[in-house]
Amino acid sequence: MQPRRPLLSALAGDDEMEALFSDDADLSAMLRTESALAAAEAEAGLISPAAAAAIAAGCEAFAPDWERLAAGIARDGVVIPEFVRQLRAAVDAEHAGAVHLGATSQDIIDTSLVCRLKQAVELLDGRLARLTDLLWQLRAVDGALPAMAHTRMQQALPFTAGDRIDTWLRPLRRHHDRLAELLSRLVVVQFGGPIGTRDGLSGQGEAVAAGLAARLGLEPAPCWHSARDGLVEFAAWLALVSGTLGKIGQDIALLAQNEVAGVSLAGGGSSSAMQHKVNPVGAEVLVALARFNAGLAGTLQQAMVHENERSGAAWTLEWLVLPQMAVTTAAALRIALSLLGGLRMKSVV
Amino acid sequence: MQPRRPLLSALAGDDEMEALFSDDADLSAMLRTESALAAAEAEAGLISPAAAAAIAAGCEAFAPDWERLAAGIARDGVVIPEFVRQLRAAVDAEHAGAVHLGATSQDIIDTSLVCRLKQAVELLDGRLARLTDLLWQLRAVDGALPAMAHTRMQQALPFTAGDRIDTWLRPLRRHHDRLAELLSRLVVVQFGGPIGTRDGLSGQGEAVAAGLAARLGLEPAPCWHSARDGLVEFAAWLALVSGTLGKIGQDIALLAQNEVAGVSLAGGGSSSAMQHKVNPVGAEVLVALARFNAGLAGTLQQAMVHENERSGAAWTLEWLVLPQMAVTTAAALRIALSLLGGLRMKSVV
Amino acid sequence: MQPRRPLLSALAGDDEMEALFSDDADLSAMLRTESALAAAEAEAGLISPAAAAAIAAGCEAFAPDWERLAAGIARDGVVIPEFVRQLRAAVDAEHAGAVHLGATSQDIIDTSLVCRLKQAVELLDGRLARLTDLLWQLRAVDGALPAMAHTRMQQALPFTAGDRIDTWLRPLRRHHDRLAELLSRLVVVQFGGPIGTRDGLSGQGEAVAAGLAARLGLEPAPCWHSARDGLVEFAAWLALVSGTLGKIGQDIALLAQNEVAGVSLAGGGSSSAMQHKVNPVGAEVLVALARFNAGLAGTLQQAMVHENERSGAAWTLEWLVLPQMAVTTAAALRIALSLLGGLRMKSVV
Amino acid sequence: MQPRRPLLSALAGDDEMEALFSDDADLSAMLRTESALAAAEAEAGLISPAAAAAIAAGCEAFAPDWERLAAGIARDGVVIPEFVRQLRAAVDAEHAGAVHLGATSQDIIDTSLVCRLKQAVELLDGRLARLTDLLWQLRAVDGALPAMAHTRMQQALPFTAGDRIDTWLRPLRRHHDRLAELLSRLVVVQFGGPIGTRDGLSGQGEAVAAGLAARLGLEPAPCWHSARDGLVEFAAWLALVSGTLGKIGQDIALLAQNEVAGVSLAGGGSSSAMQHKVNPVGAEVLVALARFNAGLAGTLQQAMVHENERSGAAWTLEWLVLPQMAVTTAAALRIALSLLGGLRMKSVV
Repeated sequence: MQPRRPLLSALAGDDEMEALFSDDADLSAMLRTESALAAAEAEAGLISPAAAAAIAAGCEAFAPDWERLAAGIARDGVVIPEFVRQLRAAVDAEHAGAVHLGATSQDIIDTSLVCRLKQAVELLDGRLARLTDLLWQLRAVDGALPAMAHTRMQQALPFTAGDRIDTWLRPLRRHHDRLAELLSRLVVVQFGGPIGTRDGLSGQGEAVAAGLAARLGLEPAPCWHSARDGLVEFAAWLALVSGTLGKIGQDIALLAQNEVAGVSLAGGGSSSAMQHKVNPVGAEVLVALARFNAGLAGTLQQAMVHENERSGAAWTLEWLVLPQMAVTTAAALRIALSLLGGLRMKSVV
Repeated sequence: MQPRRPLLSALAGDDEMEALFSDDADLSAMLRTESALAAAEAEAGLISPAAAAAIAAGCEAFAPDWERLAAGIARDGVVIPEFVRQLRAAVDAEHAGAVHLGATSQDIIDTSLVCRLKQAVELLDGRLARLTDLLWQLRAVDGALPAMAHTRMQQALPFTAGDRIDTWLRPLRRHHDRLAELLSRLVVVQFGGPIGTRDGLSGQGEAVAAGLAARLGLEPAPCWHSARDGLVEFAAWLALVSGTLGKIGQDIALLAQNEVAGVSLAGGGSSSAMQHKVNPVGAEVLVALARFNAGLAGTLQQAMVHENERSGAAWTLEWLVLPQMAVTTAAALRIALSLLGGLRMKSVV
Repeated sequence: MQPRRPLLSALAGDDEMEALFSDDADLSAMLRTESALAAAEAEAGLISPAAAAAIAAGCEAFAPDWERLAAGIARDGVVIPEFVRQLRAAVDAEHAGAVHLGATSQDIIDTSLVCRLKQAVELLDGRLARLTDLLWQLRAVDGALPAMAHTRMQQALPFTAGDRIDTWLRPLRRHHDRLAELLSRLVVVQFGGPIGTRDGLSGQGEAVAAGLAARLGLEPAPCWHSARDGLVEFAAWLALVSGTLGKIGQDIALLAQNEVAGVSLAGGGSSSAMQHKVNPVGAEVLVALARFNAGLAGTLQQAMVHENERSGAAWTLEWLVLPQMAVTTAAALRIALSLLGGLRMKSVV
Repeated sequence: MQPRRPLLSALAGDDEMEALFSDDADLSAMLRTESALAAAEAEAGLISPAAAAAIAAGCEAFAPDWERLAAGIARDGVVIPEFVRQLRAAVDAEHAGAVHLGATSQDIIDTSLVCRLKQAVELLDGRLARLTDLLWQLRAVDGALPAMAHTRMQQALPFTAGDRIDTWLRPLRRHHDRLAELLSRLVVVQFGGPIGTRDGLSGQGEAVAAGLAARLGLEPAPCWHSARDGLVEFAAWLALVSGTLGKIGQDIALLAQNEVAGVSLAGGGSSSAMQHKVNPVGAEVLVALARFNAGLAGTLQQAMVHENERSGAAWTLEWLVLPQMAVTTAAALRIALSLLGGLRMKSVV
């Protein structure tokens, strides 16, 4: 029997994004990174082609000992020392020494993260585009309906449902533009060696970094071990997206009030005590996710204060926060798609 | 094969506390709550003793359909409607209608939470006591060693290792006192019925609430559906504890600097690139957990703004945050015990 | 002409609490602290009665050079070195050396803070009591009116205005209890000397601390230079209070919607563009203050991670946050008193 | 005598940025906005050239009654109704009715804010450029000095001071790029009329918005009353900048430890109790400001959840947070310039 997912995740999580941040996905991306590193180092003449091939084969066939990996991360603060130990054991003994050459834990972990963030961006951007389309469709169908604008929680003046939908659409388009801009700072290789200087590779450090990036479909970039601005900028974008969706959710929850009756919802939640109720569950969860992500965004900003050339404290904090933010934003988009897919504006006169 | 735990949890999580917030533990406590409710209602003459017995038997034998529970929470925003449906099907048909009588989703979910928070408090308090003992022992052994006080990151004046340990001990004692004080506001029954008024039970609402509380070992209290101050107060306490441990961790990381050499650590972490290093992993993780919990504490405070008689948005936000805070604090205590168990102060002259 | 207060403060600030955190009030409390310290040290035989009298006179007559104090804090990170320089110049030359004997900057600054927090507590507790009274009065007058309960933003079942007011009253009473409990950990003297050990006063450090506390009406306590849990606990209480008021504000804003018409408000705000509107300004500001304080509470928790025996970084962070939290809570109570003083429940059938 | 600035502001504030967020600066920008609006409306044929001239003259000569403005904002939640009342009284009676035509409070307040944010951006970008120059100079002078890299708070391997400075420089350059990108979404006019639709101006709403933008040197844009993503994006940038500076400050505080001796600082702070100390005050304050801004960034994200067409609650929250973030970032840049201007790297072998 498959292990079931937590109930809370069924409400407020996201299967697809959670999968990108699973240990399996991380390990898989770490293996791709070690394999690409070996290939880049072979190209730079630092290891032999045979070694690179042996490492690629070892990565392909790698079967993790999860128990030891867990013990390793608990002891070392990072999984890489134990992971490299296992990987070397999986590579033909002659070439085991060529594994992980000149790399540090952070090179592998951050590059693995970035590989998965690249997939996360595709997932999010696709949903953002679908949501925008859905809102345009809703606008086409219901946009001309008379509606009542409210400012400061009071009836203001009549406008149309389309006017309201416009206020939802505009920030989504800007979020799309922002993502395009930040991408070149986010989807970048991490490669610095022990202290971030790309030394100790017979002067081939830059070439190896470039070769690693190219093989993984990432942008080349200087080492960013202790400068986390690219990740934090992305996280702020995640919170902007969930913030806009929280605003849409708040609007829908207010419009769905019985007394206001500005929207109709398909598939609202039922109550264990009151049969007559149809709760705007999706709308409420959007608000919750916006506030959750907002808090996490502020916490992640704290992780910019890295001590020296690598901070175990700040880095661990990042691990605790960033994946949750990606999942939260994906969940918000998933729920917004479902909520707006079943929503119709109602004429309010 | 048992499903393995996530690697990050091995570093910064806590098995025992995570277990208290698992779906299994939640379901189990919900079943105890429904069973106790039936017993209290039988005592109040609202249902028959036979019904209460049938419900108790149904709870005992209950085998959840997790897939449907997941679908239920995704649809209804709470798991209870689907849970009650399954529970009624598990109870002798004659008495199925007596299940969940006069209760609302929140009564069951919050009471289940509080039952587990009671266990969480025992876990945390026990660890806090052990940590205090450990520090007293360390003080007894190494307290007389000469040490150097630092203020504003500069050498100040000589003092002793015992003086330093005193600054760690004092807040821990205060945390113990605080916990004793807040307990009577935390470990309280939730029972209000659909809108929090304990109506609709032939005037027996108060008696049912008291009976439910007594059976579950909780304090009686007025309904607190939309007043979450008890939980948020507890969460602030959690962050106080992890904050103090973060301060201890920060001190140890600073003392463990090679240039300072104020402590020796057993079992520091190794590096994948630099064999000579012994990293103060536990100390760093304590700092990370303190900052993580600090951020979560602020986010949970946002969840006090409940709309009306029950806010789906604020309540969902609470679910996303509070369990993480309990786990984070338990992890910090676990790590502090391990770190300080292997720590010795060094003479600095 | 008196310098006017900022406009935002007229909306969301509080004159009385701001005054307690003004530089004038701080300076005044620092002078009281230095004077009391001298008296305690005279009593302990560390300085002569004449010196204590001269210091008292110097404190009484002290006229600050604000420009130099500003330059001093900018240079030293704390105002005390320059303040002590000015104070010594204001004391009879023979006794100038007895000023600030055995104290460190933090002793004076923290004790000054605590003296003013004691006043802040009185201010807040008084308003809390008045607010509770007001709600009881409202309940007496309008409690029997029929009302509609809403859960998850949907009409649930009828109840009464009194039922709703009860949900507002209960947490306020608990906040009152909490304040009484935490007070003995908050209103405590700070006295540790340079590195928190109360050394260097011929063994009279404890006696001086006790004498200082007694003279200022504070509780004696061990030094807490680097253990800020008492302040952070109080700040969490401040956020609990503003959180409850934010919930009340949110309820009122929802009830004041034209479509719901559950309350009538005296003195709502007018609009520059729409003459017909009466905006629930006070209710909205309560929500804003709750969310602001929630965020600040989380940020202050970060300040628990003090490095070593005194952290300039964590302490400065505390200065930036804690006064704002006290002002925000006082403002919320002020606004709640005004809002509820002009509010009547309306019959909803 | 000039009213003195608060002492804390001398340490951790910024005169120039605070001036941009003063009531005077706000009022002045509101007057420019009303004047430009009148000119744009005259151009669109909505009011006469004589009215526009009279309004321009009235704005020029305007003398506020601050007491009434304070009373106005306390009552209305926004200053505009009272401000417009005073402004109309200051304009030739014949044309008073043409003041503020078709505008809503938010149009004036947000546009005033954006005008000042444009100045804030210039201030910040200039300082960022100077800081970058300073670091390049430091690199040129001291870059070749041997230094010791530290990872996870432990000595790692030797590198050079220049390697370290590179890690400080790279994120600053990226911040510069980010600012250029977000500017077109930040420095945009706000004009929507009562409910954001630009209606009610004889179909000239778009022309008026464009004319207003052009006259104030802002970008044209659709109305963004309830979509605050442009401001929150900018705030996230502010926190990125102060976060990087906090990392630099943390590094310097660690390097300045007596035991490490990696830098020398000009003008460190003195202690009231210990004459021998030179405290790295600027470095510590940078850390404090980074953590403060991080917290505020998360709180501002909460303000994205605007209800309906205008949320008094979310908007007020924004007012409480955003100006502080601008001041904090400006202060961090000011302090970094001063700190790094007096810093020299020391040879560590």
